[in-house]
This record gives sequence, C-alpha cells and structure tokens, in this order.
Amino acid sequence: MDVVSEATERGVTERQVILKVGDESVPGIVWLPEGATATRPTVVLGHGGVVHKRAPEVLGLARRLVRHRGYAAIALDAPEHGDRITNKDAARAARRALQARIDQGPGGGIAPMMDETQAKEWNRRVMTHVSELSALLDDTESSGLTDGRLGYWGMSMGTGIGLRFVASDRRIKAAVLGLSGLNSGMGDGDFEAAARSLRVPILFLMQWNDELVPRQSGLDLFEAIGSEEKTLHSSPGGHVQVPVFENDAAELFFSRHLGPAA
Amino acid sequence: MDVVSEATERGVTERQVILKVGDESVPGIVWLPEGATATRPTVVLGHGGVVHKRAPEVLGLARRLVRHRGYAAIALDAPEHGDRITNKDAARAARRALQARIDQGPGGGIAPMMDETQAKEWNRRVMTHVSELSALLDDTESSGLTDGRLGYWGMSMGTGIGLRFVASDRRIKAAVLGLSGLNSGMGDGDFEAAARSLRVPILFLMQWNDELVPRQSGLDLFEAIGSEEKTLHSSPGGHVQVPVFENDAAELFFSRHLGPAA
Repeated sequence: MDVVSEATERGVTERQVILKVGDESVPGIVWLPEGATATRPTVVLGHGGVVHKRAPEVLGLARRLVRHRGYAAIALDAPEHGDRITNKDAARAARRALQARIDQGPGGGIAPMMDETQAKEWNRRVMTHVSELSALLDDTESSGLTDGRLGYWGMSMGTGIGLRFVASDRRIKAAVLGLSGLNSGMGDGDFEAAARSLRVPILFLMQWNDELVPRQSGLDLFEAIGSEEKTLHSSPGGHVQVPVFENDAAELFFSRHLGPAA
Repeated sequence: MDVVSEATERGVTERQVILKVGDESVPGIVWLPEGATATRPTVVLGHGGVVHKRAPEVLGLARRLVRHRGYAAIALDAPEHGDRITNKDAARAARRALQARIDQGPGGGIAPMMDETQAKEWNRRVMTHVSELSALLDDTESSGLTDGRLGYWGMSMGTGIGLRFVASDRRIKAAVLGLSGLNSGMGDGDFEAAARSLRVPILFLMQWNDELVPRQSGLDLFEAIGSEEKTLHSSPGGHVQVPVFENDAAELFFSRHLGPAA
C-alpha cells in the first residue's frame, strides 16, 4: 500500500493510499489516531452503490472509530466508483436511476433496474472487489498495521460485496451488514449460500420502509445468516435514512468483539 | 412511599418501599446512587410474568442505570407477583405451566394457556397495575425523587402491562418494550389501540425464536407502534434468552432520551 498524501484533523490522521492488486491500482483511505505506531483493531468500511470511499456515512463512522475507540479504519473505492469511474455518463445515469427508484417508494426492490448484461457486469465487479478486499487484508497484515482483530462494515452494495467477502475471508472476526436482502435477482444463489456459511457475529441493519429492499427480503436474509450471534436492528424510514444512533450501535458491537485498542 | 429498609452495596443504595394505592399496599424497590439527594432521570422497571421486582434481569439493569448513568430505578411487584402472591399454589402452577410451554418450543404462543376466566382476571390485574404505576409517578413527583425525565422498561408481561401504561400516562418520555406481540388473544383490541397511540421513542426487543410470541405477532406489534422513533432489535434464541448486550442498548437508549444525570 503506497501512501499518496496524509492530513491530520482533530486527532485523526487520514492517509490517501493506493493498493496494487495485480495490474490494478485501487485507491483507498486509511484513518488512524494521530501519531499511531502500534497495531490496533481495524475495521474495513465498504461504501454503498453510486457513492465512494469518503461518502459522509463512511467518513463519519471512520472518524468515530478512531476518536472513540482508537481503532484504524480503511475504505477502498469499489470498481467503477469514486476515483475508479471510467465512464462518467454511466455513473451519472446510475445515480439518477437509483434516486428515481427511491422516489417511487417502497415496493419493487432493486433487481428490476438491471438487465442481464448489467447483472453480469455487477457480478463481475462484486467478485473483483471481494478479491481486492482480501488483498487489502494481506497488505495490512504484512505492513504491521493490524493485529488480526479485523472487522467489516458495509451497507447495501457494501453488503452485496461485503457479505461474500466476510464469508470467504475468515480473517474478519465480526461484521455490520444491512440494507440488503435475499431474492434480489442479483446472483442470489451464491449470496444466500454465503449468508448461510457465515459464522462470525453479525449486526444486521434493515430499514422498515426501504424502497430498494422489500421487508420480507431483508428478514429472509437475516434468517439465512448462519452465525450463532446475529442481531437485527430496524427503524422506520427509507434506504438512505438509517438513524445516526446506529453508529453508536456499530461502535459498541465492534468494541465488544474486537476489544480495546490499547 | 414509605421506606421499609435500606442497604448500600458498591455505590448503589437499594430501598425497600411500600406505595399506598387506595387500600392496597404495593411493595417496591428504589435504586439510587449512594448519597443521592438531587432529582435525576428515573426508569420504572416492569418485571415479567411469574417473577418479581427483584428478578435478576430487573436488578441487573437497575444497578447498571445507577452505576453507569447516575439514574434512579424503581420496580413494583405486579398483582399476584413477588410479595403480593396470595395463592402460592396458583403461583407455582403458573410458573410450571409457563416453563412447560417454553419447553414445547416456538409455535403456539401464550394465549391458549388461559381460559376465559383466567383471561378476565389477567385483564383486571393489568388495569390495576397500570393505575398503580401512575400512582407511583405521582409519588415520585410529589416526593421530589424525579425531575420529570421518566423512562419505562419492561419485557413480556412488563410490556403487556407497560405498553398500556406508557400509552395512558404521558409523563413517560421513552420506553424499552418487547417479548410481546399482537393477536395474543389477551385483550388485544385495546392493546393494539394503545400501541398505535404511542408517540414516545420506543426500543422494541424481539427474540427470533420466541416460544411464547410467534415471530409474525412480534413484527406486527412493532409495525403497530405509532411512535415516529422506534427501533426493533432481534436476536436468535427463546423467550428467556435475550442477550445481555441488550442491556447496553437499553442504557444507551435511555441516555439518549433522558440525558445525563448531572
């Protein structure tokens, strides 16, 4: 992982980094307590669809984990997101389509938004990013950033990708997932199998009136999760209206499973 | 409220009290920080069926609220519970019947356990205790114990009674409810109406494999709750297997809504 730049604000050092994965240069951010040298619990943050590694919800949680717990946090841009967008028109169209779907209100889910070609491309990107996230863990281990106490947080696309990642890479010890469901029509067979294979503690967030994830689909995914410890949190509101107090819950959850920094 | 006795252990003063409500002497406990004089946020704790005001889950939460937050906590025995049991054989039979129902596993709910006479008696006790809890609030106000920042916590029967109490006594500002559902056959019409009339923030706990509350019945009750802020928490396990970390969640919830003690 190469450090491109570094800035510190109110006790949080933010490093812009580049992770080399094969021929690909994946841009990322590492957040650390100012002056940190020792290893510490580290949470990988997976951003949602059409946003990026420094979206407000990612940045906010990263800073809390650093300030309140002394943890490290890391986020990468997913393929065709953030600094990895190669087709700006397509990215803009995807943002507009998602907003239009949200404006329609709860109901049809997100699957009908994709045709077969798009769904194939989605699955390709998912599998690419799963392997990038594993390469990230390799790097954090070899560079001495982490001490093996690794967590993952990701909502929506951050679960679409992250659930498969957590299922396939057993180095992640606990994960906060959510805003996703079964039977979305997007590579569901292996997604459900991955959910059933999970064994680490999971905090699973649902929005009770999610426009993109039908309620039953979310409940079915929670039910499918194979972990002995799993907890569902749900509040009224739509896909992008998760209450801010769920950050407290995520922080408590990681603290319980990854332990204190010192 | 007359103080019968007082003892202090590890910073927590526990007062055995008697609350006079009409001709009835209702035994209760008040927990306070050692040496407390000023008013402070106060949480009323409603115990579950077949247990009492000093059941381990009540005592544990009371001590946490006092030690971690500097709050006061109060619990009363419900009619025919704890020190108010007049028919020991009936109380023993009720405990055995409940355990037998739990041993049967998830499914039928709790309503089939009661015949019409028992259901009538249940409803009479519920309404009696709702008025006793309001009398308790009158007393805490007139005695200067509380400063109006009042919360309620109660699971199972503590929701069967407490949801109606919170709906009818608008002095309660936030409540943790759970392990209860709609369509239990026990005075449901007014229970659902009470749920729909709620306006204060609610944290609602469900057990995903509750033997006494069918899953859909719990989800239906969460859906019915009229409050703008409401959050569902659910974990695997049966009726008496709520994870201990839900105490952290309850504490955070009250802290957010009732504020700091000082």
